[in-house]
Amino acid sequence: MGNTFGKTFKLTTYGESHGTAIGGILEGCPAGLTLALEAVQGELDKRRPGQSAIVTQRKEADKVVFQSGIFEGKTTGTPIGFVIENTNQKSRDYGHIKDSYRPSHADYVYDQKYGFRDYRGGGRSSARETACRVVAGAIARQFLKDITFDAYVSQVGSAILNRPHQEIDFSLTESNPVRCPDPDTAAEMESLIREVRKEGDTIGGVVSCLIRNVPVGLGEPVFDKLHAELGKAMLSINAVKGFEYGSGFAGVQMKGSEHNDRFKSDGTTETNYSGGIQGGISNGMDIYFKVAFKPVATLIQAYETIDKDGNSVEVQGKGRHDPCVVPRAVPIVEAMAALVLADFSLRARTNKLR
Amino acid sequence: MGNTFGKTFKLTTYGESHGTAIGGILEGCPAGLTLALEAVQGELDKRRPGQSAIVTQRKEADKVVFQSGIFEGKTTGTPIGFVIENTNQKSRDYGHIKDSYRPSHADYVYDQKYGFRDYRGGGRSSARETACRVVAGAIARQFLKDITFDAYVSQVGSAILNRPHQEIDFSLTESNPVRCPDPDTAAEMESLIREVRKEGDTIGGVVSCLIRNVPVGLGEPVFDKLHAELGKAMLSINAVKGFEYGSGFAGVQMKGSEHNDRFKSDGTTETNYSGGIQGGISNGMDIYFKVAFKPVATLIQAYETIDKDGNSVEVQGKGRHDPCVVPRAVPIVEAMAALVLADFSLRARTNKLR
Amino acid sequence: MGNTFGKTFKLTTYGESHGTAIGGILEGCPAGLTLALEAVQGELDKRRPGQSAIVTQRKEADKVVFQSGIFEGKTTGTPIGFVIENTNQKSRDYGHIKDSYRPSHADYVYDQKYGFRDYRGGGRSSARETACRVVAGAIARQFLKDITFDAYVSQVGSAILNRPHQEIDFSLTESNPVRCPDPDTAAEMESLIREVRKEGDTIGGVVSCLIRNVPVGLGEPVFDKLHAELGKAMLSINAVKGFEYGSGFAGVQMKGSEHNDRFKSDGTTETNYSGGIQGGISNGMDIYFKVAFKPVATLIQAYETIDKDGNSVEVQGKGRHDPCVVPRAVPIVEAMAALVLADFSLRARTNKLR
Amino acid sequence: MGNTFGKTFKLTTYGESHGTAIGGILEGCPAGLTLALEAVQGELDKRRPGQSAIVTQRKEADKVVFQSGIFEGKTTGTPIGFVIENTNQKSRDYGHIKDSYRPSHADYVYDQKYGFRDYRGGGRSSARETACRVVAGAIARQFLKDITFDAYVSQVGSAILNRPHQEIDFSLTESNPVRCPDPDTAAEMESLIREVRKEGDTIGGVVSCLIRNVPVGLGEPVFDKLHAELGKAMLSINAVKGFEYGSGFAGVQMKGSEHNDRFKSDGTTETNYSGGIQGGISNGMDIYFKVAFKPVATLIQAYETIDKDGNSVEVQGKGRHDPCVVPRAVPIVEAMAALVLADFSLRARTNKLR
Repeated sequence: MGNTFGKTFKLTTYGESHGTAIGGILEGCPAGLTLALEAVQGELDKRRPGQSAIVTQRKEADKVVFQSGIFEGKTTGTPIGFVIENTNQKSRDYGHIKDSYRPSHADYVYDQKYGFRDYRGGGRSSARETACRVVAGAIARQFLKDITFDAYVSQVGSAILNRPHQEIDFSLTESNPVRCPDPDTAAEMESLIREVRKEGDTIGGVVSCLIRNVPVGLGEPVFDKLHAELGKAMLSINAVKGFEYGSGFAGVQMKGSEHNDRFKSDGTTETNYSGGIQGGISNGMDIYFKVAFKPVATLIQAYETIDKDGNSVEVQGKGRHDPCVVPRAVPIVEAMAALVLADFSLRARTNKLR
Repeated sequence: MGNTFGKTFKLTTYGESHGTAIGGILEGCPAGLTLALEAVQGELDKRRPGQSAIVTQRKEADKVVFQSGIFEGKTTGTPIGFVIENTNQKSRDYGHIKDSYRPSHADYVYDQKYGFRDYRGGGRSSARETACRVVAGAIARQFLKDITFDAYVSQVGSAILNRPHQEIDFSLTESNPVRCPDPDTAAEMESLIREVRKEGDTIGGVVSCLIRNVPVGLGEPVFDKLHAELGKAMLSINAVKGFEYGSGFAGVQMKGSEHNDRFKSDGTTETNYSGGIQGGISNGMDIYFKVAFKPVATLIQAYETIDKDGNSVEVQGKGRHDPCVVPRAVPIVEAMAALVLADFSLRARTNKLR
Repeated sequence: MGNTFGKTFKLTTYGESHGTAIGGILEGCPAGLTLALEAVQGELDKRRPGQSAIVTQRKEADKVVFQSGIFEGKTTGTPIGFVIENTNQKSRDYGHIKDSYRPSHADYVYDQKYGFRDYRGGGRSSARETACRVVAGAIARQFLKDITFDAYVSQVGSAILNRPHQEIDFSLTESNPVRCPDPDTAAEMESLIREVRKEGDTIGGVVSCLIRNVPVGLGEPVFDKLHAELGKAMLSINAVKGFEYGSGFAGVQMKGSEHNDRFKSDGTTETNYSGGIQGGISNGMDIYFKVAFKPVATLIQAYETIDKDGNSVEVQGKGRHDPCVVPRAVPIVEAMAALVLADFSLRARTNKLR
Repeated sequence: MGNTFGKTFKLTTYGESHGTAIGGILEGCPAGLTLALEAVQGELDKRRPGQSAIVTQRKEADKVVFQSGIFEGKTTGTPIGFVIENTNQKSRDYGHIKDSYRPSHADYVYDQKYGFRDYRGGGRSSARETACRVVAGAIARQFLKDITFDAYVSQVGSAILNRPHQEIDFSLTESNPVRCPDPDTAAEMESLIREVRKEGDTIGGVVSCLIRNVPVGLGEPVFDKLHAELGKAMLSINAVKGFEYGSGFAGVQMKGSEHNDRFKSDGTTETNYSGGIQGGISNGMDIYFKVAFKPVATLIQAYETIDKDGNSVEVQGKGRHDPCVVPRAVPIVEAMAALVLADFSLRARTNKLR
């Protein structure tokens, strides 16, 4: 069914983009955590449509309402139920796609898999579902306290931020609508996005993420390696096509003698090609990874496609869509990373005898 | 705690590289499947140490013995238990690492996580564990019947096979010890591997994989997307640093108008940048992906590191190790891919009313 | 963390009795099921407080609102999110128990387990949570179509319905507030309940349940036997102390030669001491079981207990509570039984090759 | 598919009674536990066939061999793989049942569910599978250390031990082959068993179990209540028809004012009708429960039944079977109870912030 993420710190979500509401149940958050709910809403605001000129102009309030699991400001250890109403549905925007399949969307496969589909706005396959991840991820971050998560846009089309993360000033990430912490590259990215938007087209991008202050010992040997879960978490975000961590694909060209991270006497390492993870388990060094996003499939152009019977039809793309998904993906990447770390953090409590 | 892969077609493994045996339990394989057990052993032989001059010279028989779940040549629907004995353990080879931490190995993190470790040959973090995956994957392939899996080495260090998979003759993959289906590139790769081995060094590589004849509708929306599970499956293999499918990281630079795969009247698409998956669900087109492997960390060189107390020590790397892991990774990649598809194939049985 | 029931047809619930709302997510219901939502509400009404003179006089509307997973009257295969608002909370009723522990309630153990508790009305341990089970169970019944579930009150205190289920006219179950299908016994039970209520006391009871038209083959060998899951399902309902099926505890005194159910030529059996289940798997005969409920712990009497510091305190029990829980437990027992059967019904789809 | 028990302390088993071997994988046992392996074998010996004159005379060595997860006498935190060879298979004993269905056995339902079955000795439905539970349970007990488990036979047919557990001297349980701690009742039970055996018949029984020194806080609210998992654990044992804990079915007749357990100042209670569990969570008092076993279905008598085509056949029961299953069930009940407690003990580690 695939609607649950995590084994102990565990999120289950529901909701279609144009139903009554979307929502989720977060289980496993330990009791006694004082929650700053406005910080949760703050993360959600970063993901919200309509926040700047370069994202979709849909206007959704995206207010999260908590229904359980919190008492007198603290988590009780029972499941945290929450709901986000769908306020701006404009179902009529989707009449034109009711009977045809948009290219590189999930319309066709949903019809094949389930026999029919909720055709309004992508239904369950809409990226709107990620709002629930952001809510849960924001709680995970409060639970994890000292661990920091810094995601940022490092590439839009051919515009690339080529600086290593050690040299980045993350306080600048929110200083521009692209969420690239380098102002010059950000400006370049922004003008590229404006350009493709003018054409009714879209462009891909990369979100990089840095996780610091991770304790040693998170992650499980064999199948549930820390980076394997991070990879799954990222690949489960809409439009993602690739994931690499540490030396990544570039590491392929290195020799072992170069790539090995030599220990210092305190157990830290001189280099960090490993990306903070050995054998699937955190080693206390910084974890860093990259996530590739394809160009959004929804274009504001006329396009040819087929209807349910295989007839060729021409459709005029319309609606309010993102020309580039990565600026709004930044809080989602951080949220999913936090969910992974929170889950492993709880799972690590059973490693040893007490 | 991370020793199980899959939800319905489900493998659980156990075993350290230098214990008595490794083994596994495969659950969920439907009853009535006639198993060709010699084909299972055949896959295991492709992963076996000592099979060629460019892999580790350890000699392990790696014979799988089935203990349950098969009766009169057919699966019974009950769990398939199997064991592979550890015959060639040479525990003495590991005395030199008992009290020190090898760089870029899991020694340090296991000690931190569990308080102590089975230091013989990497214990549970040894790639020997993947033999069990190959056994289960070979059964999965027999279950999946028409779906074909073709993995191959597409890069070793700087030697790259640049041909699209449509132009590859997969009958050549097994014609050389590198498992690259292009003889010229294979020769180049082989000489590169021989060279780094002479230096006591290692080199990274890429395994590409093509999956064909996939029915439409495998994979689950939201968290358990088909490519997310494939990504997790691959990232859980030892030494993997990255995963991309379809257009992958290169797709980032494309525009939506280019990247969108236009439908033909039969529901197939003209291009296939999507990599056979839409919204996490197979669309019937070829699935293809790449897996990046770092250079193996074990070198046959002297190196400096620390002992348990943080003292600097010099260690002489020895033993019998792979200078490049990708040739032996080919059957593992296929096995993990088959496990993912088998699992989703069963999960898809509950999509609709009957 | 225990908020999920089922593996494939799967319910996850949230909510405290005195929070904003309770609700749940039902996953795994196959696509294409036409839902009669008024029948779902109808089941909920049978569980509702205030429905008759012999149950608690709290007035909760208990209206279920569906938020996702249903489109144009049919299930879509995506998760069904639903919410039931808490409209009649009267939190002030619980001020008197804020700092003391009610005997035979969960107050003390929650405080010990989580460090503190939502003391309003039992919080998560309130039987109000079962309303979500009834919603999901009602959907399960519509999915299961031909399988019928008939639960009824067979004992209240010493008033016992001693007739075998073959002789019962289930159309009479709803003819009286006790939900006992025998009018005479029902009258006896009702007067017993009125009596204990007058004393501010409570009394226990038994709910029996009959499941018919079950296909052969539901249930899994070994740990997830059909009756083991039924037992767990029933024991997870508030106030349950025992479960038996088929010959139950009385079967202990029988000899094998008596107890064995002899086959007829069509695979059915002459007797049915087995209770419709062999080796954990349904055999097509009627499934029947009994569930024992203790007397409700909340009394409308003064009682002595301790506060958080172990001091003795006297408390005056008040509020609106059930003198006997079994009449309102009938729809809950049916719902849980339906959830078990729906789950195994989907799981059975993977038994064989296709 | 039902071969796994537990969520964190987790046992997965495989094996048919007449295959090569049975075995299991125990995951989640924390690292650093010094294991007394001879105590594990000792528990297995209590379950072994042929141990006394009143149990089956099959002679199986039932020696457990550990293959992983233990290093230098201690658990490593990795999965513990173990195997028990099937040494005394005598497959010929089962030729007579190959084509017919034994009454009240799983033969018929396996054939229906899976299309065919391993007909030798019950295959996967054989109680032989419980040997793996005893191995894992014995490790669980060593992990749980201070918690004690005392199961004993409290009823065989009409012979009943009517003493409350407070008055029982458990050092006498192993003093007789019935495992009833009261010598007089034991003698009565033993003669009853000898009698039914002489007739080629069988008889049912009850195993009672007492668990002491349980910490407060084990068990989860809602679905995974401590007693619900205990119930499922017991009902998953072959031949079990009922489970009750605390006041059980008898509690139905009590009033709340009688049944409520009044607190003492230290949080313990004066009475213990609750059976050590409130709202699904242990309260530190003794946990006690009863498990009803039906008479074994295998008789050493001629009986009529049907073959696969529904033809009536007469079969002569033979082989070596238990006239009464409860003496050998005692270690199984303890093992399953220990698995439940070990699992909840680990799950409780995530209740609170640290």
